[in-house]
Amino acid sequence: MEALVIHAPHDLRLDHIADAPAPGPGHVRVAVSHGGICGSDLHYFQHGGFGTVRLREPMALGHEVSAIVTDIGAEVDGLLPGDRVAVNPSQPCGTCRYCLAGQANQCLDMRFNGSAMRFPHEQGLFRAALTLPAARVVRLSPDADLALAAMAEPLAVCLHAVRGAGALTGARVLVSGCGPIGCLTVAAARHAGAAQIIATDISASALKMAAQMGADQLIDLSQDPQGLQPLTDNKGQIDVAFECSGAPQAFAGVAQVVRAGGQLITVGLGPDVALPLTQIVTRELRIQGSFRFDAEFATAARLIDQGRINPRPLLTRVLPASQATEAFELAADKTRAMKVQIAFDAL
Amino acid sequence: MEALVIHAPHDLRLDHIADAPAPGPGHVRVAVSHGGICGSDLHYFQHGGFGTVRLREPMALGHEVSAIVTDIGAEVDGLLPGDRVAVNPSQPCGTCRYCLAGQANQCLDMRFNGSAMRFPHEQGLFRAALTLPAARVVRLSPDADLALAAMAEPLAVCLHAVRGAGALTGARVLVSGCGPIGCLTVAAARHAGAAQIIATDISASALKMAAQMGADQLIDLSQDPQGLQPLTDNKGQIDVAFECSGAPQAFAGVAQVVRAGGQLITVGLGPDVALPLTQIVTRELRIQGSFRFDAEFATAARLIDQGRINPRPLLTRVLPASQATEAFELAADKTRAMKVQIAFDAL
Amino acid sequence: MEALVIHAPHDLRLDHIADAPAPGPGHVRVAVSHGGICGSDLHYFQHGGFGTVRLREPMALGHEVSAIVTDIGAEVDGLLPGDRVAVNPSQPCGTCRYCLAGQANQCLDMRFNGSAMRFPHEQGLFRAALTLPAARVVRLSPDADLALAAMAEPLAVCLHAVRGAGALTGARVLVSGCGPIGCLTVAAARHAGAAQIIATDISASALKMAAQMGADQLIDLSQDPQGLQPLTDNKGQIDVAFECSGAPQAFAGVAQVVRAGGQLITVGLGPDVALPLTQIVTRELRIQGSFRFDAEFATAARLIDQGRINPRPLLTRVLPASQATEAFELAADKTRAMKVQIAFDAL
Amino acid sequence: MEALVIHAPHDLRLDHIADAPAPGPGHVRVAVSHGGICGSDLHYFQHGGFGTVRLREPMALGHEVSAIVTDIGAEVDGLLPGDRVAVNPSQPCGTCRYCLAGQANQCLDMRFNGSAMRFPHEQGLFRAALTLPAARVVRLSPDADLALAAMAEPLAVCLHAVRGAGALTGARVLVSGCGPIGCLTVAAARHAGAAQIIATDISASALKMAAQMGADQLIDLSQDPQGLQPLTDNKGQIDVAFECSGAPQAFAGVAQVVRAGGQLITVGLGPDVALPLTQIVTRELRIQGSFRFDAEFATAARLIDQGRINPRPLLTRVLPASQATEAFELAADKTRAMKVQIAFDAL
Repeated sequence: MEALVIHAPHDLRLDHIADAPAPGPGHVRVAVSHGGICGSDLHYFQHGGFGTVRLREPMALGHEVSAIVTDIGAEVDGLLPGDRVAVNPSQPCGTCRYCLAGQANQCLDMRFNGSAMRFPHEQGLFRAALTLPAARVVRLSPDADLALAAMAEPLAVCLHAVRGAGALTGARVLVSGCGPIGCLTVAAARHAGAAQIIATDISASALKMAAQMGADQLIDLSQDPQGLQPLTDNKGQIDVAFECSGAPQAFAGVAQVVRAGGQLITVGLGPDVALPLTQIVTRELRIQGSFRFDAEFATAARLIDQGRINPRPLLTRVLPASQATEAFELAADKTRAMKVQIAFDAL
Repeated sequence: MEALVIHAPHDLRLDHIADAPAPGPGHVRVAVSHGGICGSDLHYFQHGGFGTVRLREPMALGHEVSAIVTDIGAEVDGLLPGDRVAVNPSQPCGTCRYCLAGQANQCLDMRFNGSAMRFPHEQGLFRAALTLPAARVVRLSPDADLALAAMAEPLAVCLHAVRGAGALTGARVLVSGCGPIGCLTVAAARHAGAAQIIATDISASALKMAAQMGADQLIDLSQDPQGLQPLTDNKGQIDVAFECSGAPQAFAGVAQVVRAGGQLITVGLGPDVALPLTQIVTRELRIQGSFRFDAEFATAARLIDQGRINPRPLLTRVLPASQATEAFELAADKTRAMKVQIAFDAL
Repeated sequence: MEALVIHAPHDLRLDHIADAPAPGPGHVRVAVSHGGICGSDLHYFQHGGFGTVRLREPMALGHEVSAIVTDIGAEVDGLLPGDRVAVNPSQPCGTCRYCLAGQANQCLDMRFNGSAMRFPHEQGLFRAALTLPAARVVRLSPDADLALAAMAEPLAVCLHAVRGAGALTGARVLVSGCGPIGCLTVAAARHAGAAQIIATDISASALKMAAQMGADQLIDLSQDPQGLQPLTDNKGQIDVAFECSGAPQAFAGVAQVVRAGGQLITVGLGPDVALPLTQIVTRELRIQGSFRFDAEFATAARLIDQGRINPRPLLTRVLPASQATEAFELAADKTRAMKVQIAFDAL
Repeated sequence: MEALVIHAPHDLRLDHIADAPAPGPGHVRVAVSHGGICGSDLHYFQHGGFGTVRLREPMALGHEVSAIVTDIGAEVDGLLPGDRVAVNPSQPCGTCRYCLAGQANQCLDMRFNGSAMRFPHEQGLFRAALTLPAARVVRLSPDADLALAAMAEPLAVCLHAVRGAGALTGARVLVSGCGPIGCLTVAAARHAGAAQIIATDISASALKMAAQMGADQLIDLSQDPQGLQPLTDNKGQIDVAFECSGAPQAFAGVAQVVRAGGQLITVGLGPDVALPLTQIVTRELRIQGSFRFDAEFATAARLIDQGRINPRPLLTRVLPASQATEAFELAADKTRAMKVQIAFDAL
């Protein structure tokens, strides 16, 4: 069968690999349907990695996929051939101290599809078919939209971040950075009952997308660099801010608008940031990182399936696997693309 | 009567000021006994202020004092002349949104003795006598040690920080920076049931003091710059770290030893710190500022009075008000001094 | 002007009372539009009170009203004559220890309109006009539906209960008792992102209403007394239960379906309940009372005004003040009525 | 070897059983030293069980034991023959949803030594020797007192309860019921920094013991049935109450003294308690069960070993295994006994 494999920067190939094996007990085999291109996929494509994480062997990319069940192993309940599913790329060990503490996303021996963090690399999900434990798929409704279902993974990241903020009822929320993660955070905060959501970015088109996902107010910092100023009144007007851009200059601005004792959830990865220690101490800010997800994956898949969160506006385009390089190039162009997906059903 | 007034950097005088008035309803008059010199007092003495906070008129210094009640106004219950008390320098407005939310230490209209943040400045407590609301003094036992009682204020700062960490039973704690605040944080964490307390500093004498206040393990980073390395295993070994030094380089080191999902409470004020955002996000650190105190002041005064926390080892020396400048110079010399106090009872 | 005053059980009269005074500084005068009949109003009407709370003088009823601003005192910003508003019946003192701790709903000197708990009684809001502090009204949009706006108060009760549960993203929720409070709790839990909501009652019509307000699954315990049984598997399947019926037998059933460590929020008032101590201890249940509201009132008014929560299905009927007794009798008939309101605009 | 086996009520025998096997990889063999008699042991001895939990086959009793390591299997680090240890009786499965959520004490497949809850019963620890996973023993200092070490288990129960209350700094605490669990809860609350601890009981000798363990104030409800009355002022004066008696009448009294929004942690098992729902709702009480322990076992063993908590006053007497029946009879007499232990080292 075929898989979409990165060999070196800009060297992305549809390679022929061994077929997915017949599923053993507790396992299923699925035909991959749609796969979304994420920021880390782009880093491998453009630069061969990021930070100290570097490609050391060819690796199939991808960790945002939907699929259709084709074969079912023994001892699997509740799944039938033809079922539409979202595939969870996260494989915690289940035995380390973090797994046993309810923090499986911090597993000391995590295997996460399409990541070069380990060696041999954990191969990604951009393959024609996958054989995997039944517990790693979430069954959807018979007519589930498989493009939307492939957005369960990034939505799960955002649900995890929003959940970290606690109850949002009545809260005034700011989301900084309106790429796919920022926009899905807007949707997740709206879904969790935020009273008001303010979105900031330096791109008008990204902000427009945030509005479609539920933001009440938009601030374009490229046009209005002082746009956050009114939110600094009385030690800050924002109860919970989500920093999704990873841009150091954004971080400092966001820290100024969070009220004393309020929360700043950091989701976006980026270079060193200058933490304003005086601000943090005197206003008793609570800064909290949020990384990946755990049980939120199933929640995300169901929310999309039920239509309670609709990520449709974020889907820029779906290209066939045969045009994967074009898809990656489109995804890399932030002026034209939000979320680009690849269709694998023709493989 | 006399007060210890700063006029300009290094220009500290015992000025003659108007007597403390007879106490009206709900008020008491007290004779100040001991006053501790704090870091902010030193900043006014050495530099005329810090950051944007600058002396614009002469100001009595001091906000760490004990006293003896001399006169009692109408409608005051539970206090008698001769009572020994600790004096709370914090005067929140009681009506702003923070006061009504249980965050009085974040009061939008806070008056804090001995601070040039407002203009006219809020005069300090280094005066022969004070007239103030009875609710601002905490009554101590008849034989309370008034030098120790004057350490209720810095201890309150530390209790507030420790309380922000939640339950410490079973927790592995690190305290970074062993000046008076770091050492009292060690004592407060011990008192709150921390299982193990590791103290770090670059001064052997400061670390020795931390040991006396209850630290189990000491790391002298000047001798052993890699001393934190073993604590970085498995995504970090520390459940809760208290950063009390305000030194940017210390902050980065501390961030590396906090376990995934663990807490880093920042107490020390300092310049901006450059921190890898990646650390905060991927290990889901929770960084939380802690500033001043609220109800913890009365708790601190009682813990010292009952002998449950004994700050005696921190007291370097008590000098009479007539030698105030010497006292400030001694306090400024970190190699010789931890906490220096001034005795006001001879005024 | 006229007011709807209870003199004794079943003796409800439109009394002529002194006009609402012209508003002083910081105050407004409003013409009452709609007033909802609440359970406590019914208790006064039917029994002259409840428990130890008894009518000792005639008292205007009502604490769920909307109104239109007619006159504006000095020093009032942001309100104009003609503005539609929801009126907050809660008047905490602002100075007691609960008010200063962010628990104003627990005020030691609370004045709550239409309550005989104090003497003289705190008169209710079923009056032609009211003069009150501007801070007690929430301004709505120009075309706000004033019948729906009068449901801000009961919705605030439910938002407070839901907020007490913390983040609901991904949570499986049960609501026990589908009167107005139960149904609005369903809506509030849905709004806060609950993954699944199961509603229970012994009335098919009440359950139907719960479904309209957002419940996913209904259990009619009159038809299916063992309907909760499947939810007791594995120490309980429910993350958060809201007990809104106040029926002791309901409480015990609900306690059995909450998972180990899960929450049981009690909202409904009722007689003594037999707490199953062994259940609470061995499954480490967290039972938490929820009473009235604080900042949630403004949130509730805005959610209704924005259409984010739509209480319309609960509104059984609106009767003119001249038919108030009929309105109370209808409200008392649970087989026919959910929420009955009285229109005051013709007074 | 020999074991202390209950065959039927009052039929307790030193039976000859198969020797503890040589330890395999990851396991150790230990010689049991001291074993404390707990309430559940007494229930089996006196009544053959409790509630629905009934003896259905002979069962070795005991789950509070200390021991000395005799043999060490392969792949065991950090233990040597001769090491003194506390033995953890809790064996969660490590794979159920509770184990993976950090709630291993709620394991769906828990094996707990000396419990007839499962069939075949999980045999107890009152045996001459045990072979068990090395992870189930906590290594103590070379001169550890093995009688005190055998109290790690009940102390762990209390640490778990106290931890559930969150930060206690500044808190006013009440402990209801001063048997071994109540007294150790007093010690644990003191250790966690409670500001004031009030103990209640109906036995003067139990209260005297609570004072030795750290209680500041004692209320003997048999002498002063209205002794809690002053604590009901202003909606309750107690921040956190621990109900350790399991007596229904005690529960109701305790509920009245917890402040609005305060916590009532229930540790004691007992029959259903009738409680006015109105109290829970209107004062927004938080009632929370606490059951057994998890990581607190190791913490408890270390706190005793370090002398930070000293349970010595609770130890009534140690009897040799040959006098086990006398030991159980003494333990059953609450007027004479607090904690009775059996020495197994002569077996």
